[in-house]
Amino acid sequence: MNDIYAEIITIGDEILYGQITDTNSQWIGKELDKIGFRVSRKVSIGDKRGEIVNALEEAEKRASVIILTGGLGPTKDDITKKTIAEYVKTPLVLNADVLENVERIFKKRNRQMNDLNKSQAYIPQNAEVLMNTLGTAPGMWISHNDCIIISLPGVPHEMKKIMVDYALPKLNDSYDTPYIHHVMIKTIGIGETRIAPMIENLENSLPSHIKLAYLPRLGQVRLRLTGIGNNKDAIIKEVNEFASQLVKIVKQYVYAYDDEEVETTVGKLLLEKGLTLATAESCTGGRVADKITDIAGCSAYYMGGIVAYNNLVKETQLGVQKATLEKFGAVSEQTAKEMAENVRVKYKANFGISTTGIAGPGGGTPEKPVGTVYIAVASANGTEVKLLNLSDDRQVNIRLTYSAVLDLLRLKLLEIE
Amino acid sequence: MNDIYAEIITIGDEILYGQITDTNSQWIGKELDKIGFRVSRKVSIGDKRGEIVNALEEAEKRASVIILTGGLGPTKDDITKKTIAEYVKTPLVLNADVLENVERIFKKRNRQMNDLNKSQAYIPQNAEVLMNTLGTAPGMWISHNDCIIISLPGVPHEMKKIMVDYALPKLNDSYDTPYIHHVMIKTIGIGETRIAPMIENLENSLPSHIKLAYLPRLGQVRLRLTGIGNNKDAIIKEVNEFASQLVKIVKQYVYAYDDEEVETTVGKLLLEKGLTLATAESCTGGRVADKITDIAGCSAYYMGGIVAYNNLVKETQLGVQKATLEKFGAVSEQTAKEMAENVRVKYKANFGISTTGIAGPGGGTPEKPVGTVYIAVASANGTEVKLLNLSDDRQVNIRLTYSAVLDLLRLKLLEIE
Repeated sequence: MNDIYAEIITIGDEILYGQITDTNSQWIGKELDKIGFRVSRKVSIGDKRGEIVNALEEAEKRASVIILTGGLGPTKDDITKKTIAEYVKTPLVLNADVLENVERIFKKRNRQMNDLNKSQAYIPQNAEVLMNTLGTAPGMWISHNDCIIISLPGVPHEMKKIMVDYALPKLNDSYDTPYIHHVMIKTIGIGETRIAPMIENLENSLPSHIKLAYLPRLGQVRLRLTGIGNNKDAIIKEVNEFASQLVKIVKQYVYAYDDEEVETTVGKLLLEKGLTLATAESCTGGRVADKITDIAGCSAYYMGGIVAYNNLVKETQLGVQKATLEKFGAVSEQTAKEMAENVRVKYKANFGISTTGIAGPGGGTPEKPVGTVYIAVASANGTEVKLLNLSDDRQVNIRLTYSAVLDLLRLKLLEIE
Repeated sequence: MNDIYAEIITIGDEILYGQITDTNSQWIGKELDKIGFRVSRKVSIGDKRGEIVNALEEAEKRASVIILTGGLGPTKDDITKKTIAEYVKTPLVLNADVLENVERIFKKRNRQMNDLNKSQAYIPQNAEVLMNTLGTAPGMWISHNDCIIISLPGVPHEMKKIMVDYALPKLNDSYDTPYIHHVMIKTIGIGETRIAPMIENLENSLPSHIKLAYLPRLGQVRLRLTGIGNNKDAIIKEVNEFASQLVKIVKQYVYAYDDEEVETTVGKLLLEKGLTLATAESCTGGRVADKITDIAGCSAYYMGGIVAYNNLVKETQLGVQKATLEKFGAVSEQTAKEMAENVRVKYKANFGISTTGIAGPGGGTPEKPVGTVYIAVASANGTEVKLLNLSDDRQVNIRLTYSAVLDLLRLKLLEIE
């Protein structure tokens, strides 16, 4: 079994101009990785004939599979389909199945079809159609120069459905790939240069087919172990063994594994222990509630919350005492404490958590500069309040605060038997 | 004045594996575009010597400026700095200024420096340092083969600060670039194939230096006009004229311009009219509040809100009548109406908005399948409720719901003199 390389090409001037975030290539990379393909490169280019041809030529030299997204719309600026047809030297022909699909979609939406819509049903003669049931631009699978070219629409949910239903199973059947196993260990509260000497001996003992990477991110460091091998069970076992040795060394800093975020960890712990949660937010403005409710099934443990942006709301809705607000201010240990305790009681939850701080850019003072944030976790066992001194960037402060309050809750949940 | 091309190379196995979203290349693309550079390509590669060298060689053929991010950490897996030094055939030498910066950062964090940290102060001899005051990995500016190579750390807030403080001003001084002017017109509630025939005549009348692109996205279509020219004032004027002709044709569907999101539009309107807002969310779980509070200065018009995930919370905290919940259910026109009206009164705001629905994946019934969502906007003039039939994807439903409720609020705000 040899490594099979794939290259991802995303097409669209808007990607180069920075007008959209290219999430397609990330998603495709992850899915290819899961079925053992090695992504050798990701390339983003504009809607230009020469660029598309050049990117295809270069990719064919390096990879066995090329996946393109974007540029399949019916309007003038989209030229991917025409360019691919020219590149593989085949005419565009009307495909009856695709036309039927386009007609079905228009009937469902109660809309009239025009010629632009109909043009979506023309595809390169030698292409196999990967049907797009969610939209009018079909996916295409083309063999060319010992390479598979897969062209997909740029609209993320359409692209994903075609990949999952057709392209990924077909790729899996077409190639015999080695197995790739990752374990991602997520730590919080320790920097990478402090971790490195702690795990140096382990790192040096890794065999050449297992690699360790450090991925730092806002207050967190993720450690990734990646193993590649022909025997699936053996490589999983081997990587997992190194992972558990690694976890033993940095145990107190580990908050989650793999794709799991801290809100997932917290959700699992609440569910496991049959406990409920309510939130009271000021500076995070709903971000904590939003992250908690990103998890399907959260209604089993999440009661709800208050976004108390205005001080009047803190007082009348959250029951923070006027005296507390006047004496200590909205951004204070005392206010954070009352917010967490009161939302817990009001919403009849086992835990109440709160955030209050100066996210910025305005609102800072010499005593309480931008980045001054208090977080609190309240339960029947009492309340813990923590002061965070964060950055001068509003978005960074919101993100660090929501991670910190959920991590503090995680630690409290771990204390409960 | 000629077009100056730039290429962006992001380095890191985690990008190819799809373990992180590469937001750096988007941000850099946008900033380069603002100062008139044309980004010809974005490339993502792994932490491999051969790949880095090959990407640099290819980019040097196409571009005058190459910006690399990532792979500058102190740990073993990061090899960008060493590889660049080899590529430009120069040794790594200790830089006293960088060492001082690393020492300063460690002193500030009250941490002990080790040899790994010190290694950050070695840089290629012919590189000019772009100081990183937020972290230990310095930025570097290197001239090579008539090309400028700029290497930056991958941590986004460090990369951005170095770009803004040093790299962008230096690039702006070094090249005489043409002016690029974009106008992005954001529409909601109409598809691209319905817009295309409406604006066909205008599209055909555009001169060759002005391009129109259609960028569809979840229920929205953005129309981008891009003009390039040597005379800044003339090109801005010309593009803006076409933009206003275009807006006249699709006026009723336009909700915002350029980088503006619907929450920004709504915020501006509230501020302008001196009105306030409160939110009551069920299925969006705090996303509406989060988006509103992403805007700095929102405390002038946003009172706060309730995330009423649990029915008990809808009843006790939001005052939705028990009879309403029992007779019509939590996902109903009546519940949405009471939520919006009650939060408005309770939070003493001019407008109350609400969301309630089945985001999925669980909770659907034959009468109310996943994707059934009610939104409401309440004011002193009455309440409007709208039923949305969305998708079976939880994340898509949350996003579509928050856009829809803010757009409904926008339309109501436009009605007020």
